[in-house]
Amino acid sequence: MDDTIERLRLIRTEGVGPLTYRRLIARFGTVQNALEALPDLARAGGRASPPAPPDRRAIEAEIKALKKLGGKFLFVDSPGYPEFLAELPDAPPALAVLGDVSLLSARSVGIVGARNASANGMRMAEQLATELAAEDLAVVSGLARGIDAAAHKGALKTGRTVAVIAGGLDIPYPPENEKLQAQIAATGAVIAEAPLGTAPISRHFPKRNRNIAGLVLGLVVIEAAPRSGSLLTARLANEAGRELFAVPGSPLDPRCRGSNDLIRQGANLTESAADVLANLPDHPSRQGLARDPLFLHQRSGLAEKSNNFFVPVADAEIAEGRRSIPPLIGADPVMVDEIARRCQLSTAAVSAVLLELELAGKVETLPGNRVARTASP
Amino acid sequence: MDDTIERLRLIRTEGVGPLTYRRLIARFGTVQNALEALPDLARAGGRASPPAPPDRRAIEAEIKALKKLGGKFLFVDSPGYPEFLAELPDAPPALAVLGDVSLLSARSVGIVGARNASANGMRMAEQLATELAAEDLAVVSGLARGIDAAAHKGALKTGRTVAVIAGGLDIPYPPENEKLQAQIAATGAVIAEAPLGTAPISRHFPKRNRNIAGLVLGLVVIEAAPRSGSLLTARLANEAGRELFAVPGSPLDPRCRGSNDLIRQGANLTESAADVLANLPDHPSRQGLARDPLFLHQRSGLAEKSNNFFVPVADAEIAEGRRSIPPLIGADPVMVDEIARRCQLSTAAVSAVLLELELAGKVETLPGNRVARTASP
Repeated sequence: MDDTIERLRLIRTEGVGPLTYRRLIARFGTVQNALEALPDLARAGGRASPPAPPDRRAIEAEIKALKKLGGKFLFVDSPGYPEFLAELPDAPPALAVLGDVSLLSARSVGIVGARNASANGMRMAEQLATELAAEDLAVVSGLARGIDAAAHKGALKTGRTVAVIAGGLDIPYPPENEKLQAQIAATGAVIAEAPLGTAPISRHFPKRNRNIAGLVLGLVVIEAAPRSGSLLTARLANEAGRELFAVPGSPLDPRCRGSNDLIRQGANLTESAADVLANLPDHPSRQGLARDPLFLHQRSGLAEKSNNFFVPVADAEIAEGRRSIPPLIGADPVMVDEIARRCQLSTAAVSAVLLELELAGKVETLPGNRVARTASP
Repeated sequence: MDDTIERLRLIRTEGVGPLTYRRLIARFGTVQNALEALPDLARAGGRASPPAPPDRRAIEAEIKALKKLGGKFLFVDSPGYPEFLAELPDAPPALAVLGDVSLLSARSVGIVGARNASANGMRMAEQLATELAAEDLAVVSGLARGIDAAAHKGALKTGRTVAVIAGGLDIPYPPENEKLQAQIAATGAVIAEAPLGTAPISRHFPKRNRNIAGLVLGLVVIEAAPRSGSLLTARLANEAGRELFAVPGSPLDPRCRGSNDLIRQGANLTESAADVLANLPDHPSRQGLARDPLFLHQRSGLAEKSNNFFVPVADAEIAEGRRSIPPLIGADPVMVDEIARRCQLSTAAVSAVLLELELAGKVETLPGNRVARTASP
């Protein structure tokens, strides 16, 4: 219990995102050590008043509230966390789950698409989900209006489904899907990255999409307009080595442009569950995964070795990094590998200095192992 | 003129199909020699009463009637015949043409699809054709109801179009497209393989489809059900090395299954004219063409060298072939190459003996340079 409280305090500290959390654990070995190091790290990065972790009572209240809802927490560096999601370098450090936690480690396929879907699109989503759930696949979606809701409903008919939501578990969104969320929690699972009480706003949805992409072996896209959230989910799934499927549609319907584009780019043209079943792999493709050296270092036996991440770094190296690294980072994103090559320091030293700069709010970490100077330091 | 009459007499003789015509010219050098050799060939193949060519007056009447319609003949071994169509081993020896003959050698793209097309499918066909014709491409189609008619109409708005019909030029089919056929002939071209007066029946349509496939650099398929004529056209186009394009559609509409399948098999997913223009080659791909050794022998400078096809074959070789080849041909199709290897005779000798057997009605030539014993000898 104490460990859970300390973990959540670290995770809920301002400036500690998923990557920073992993880096802190990698550098300091334990959550307690990381919490203690936070003020000095932020100051070393140049921040006068370091961010304070929330106090223990606030976290105790969150844990109690989740328990009351019937939910529990899963941590990225502890057993039970969904295996494929953990492969993402920026997997959420903590997930709040309602329902059957074991379902998150089942073979699963995502179905996502337009909120303003056509009747045919929703029929297609429902039909596919019904058939895939009947084959014992967990159907994962985002509980949005349109395609997502149709997929969840279809899966409930014959099997199990996982809803990944953007806000807190106690804030059903959209409101009309409250009953659906309860039905899903009763036989499947509902998961949230945001703390309880969080009303979902726009910045939460990309994280929801990343979590869908990370959970599944394959993702089916139905009616996705260009620049839609569903296409973002598809891009994240592809980067994570998950198989892409797309249902074709008339070029005269703008809602089909994005999904047709995916087919043009190599997604499996999908007309039925058979098309998915024939092409769904047993594991994510390694090729698709981002190559974060630190992340790769950690990945083998993540859950078992959570306290063995410590990478020793000489103080002299860090001092040298604090001097030479900041000038290398501008407004345009730069690869961490490139920084390491230019400053001739070890990956661990570069990582340690970047951690300080992140916690000080001076740089931000971007997808694909890149960093940039923050817009307003 | 005399040459035209003799050519048409040979072409219109029972048992002389496109491949046999080419083989006869290859063996005997001139149409006149081939006509004279016909009776002996058929008898050598084992037929008691050889097929007689039509008499000169019947052919003269056909030529006169076509001239009266404003049309003319093109022959596969004479100048003016469409270059890419001539590359097909079974290109029709004679084509009757109304309108602008030069259009048949222009860069062109076919658009074909369902007769019972949806309103959206026809809108798509019309729109694509309008845009492609505006880019100076001739739009080729089959003058059928639905997608074909929509494509012709779309092309007429901005450019030129070619109608390939199944019956004779004087039998507009379907009747409601009579006016459309006249409009096409006025600014574009209408072509027919069947003699004047031929009412189209089912066996004419595969030939019409092969002629569309042969004329074009690329073929766009819109709303083709499984096992439809449009899919046959696509197969023939692919075998002839032409680029395939297909417009995607909802899996819930059976009319889209065939076209979606084409995309799954590698056809270019097509949403607009830009998709066609970006992928339309300047020449058919050589890889797609059937490998008929005799055909390849002829192809270089086909039109110029029409009288130089003569391949001498020793009588002893033919005598040996007449003895050894018939037992090698059963009801299952066999490659001509395989026959040549087994009987150890030259390709020219094998070809000569097959010619006799074909004219005698004992064997039939099949696509892909294969032959089989005819069902009822």
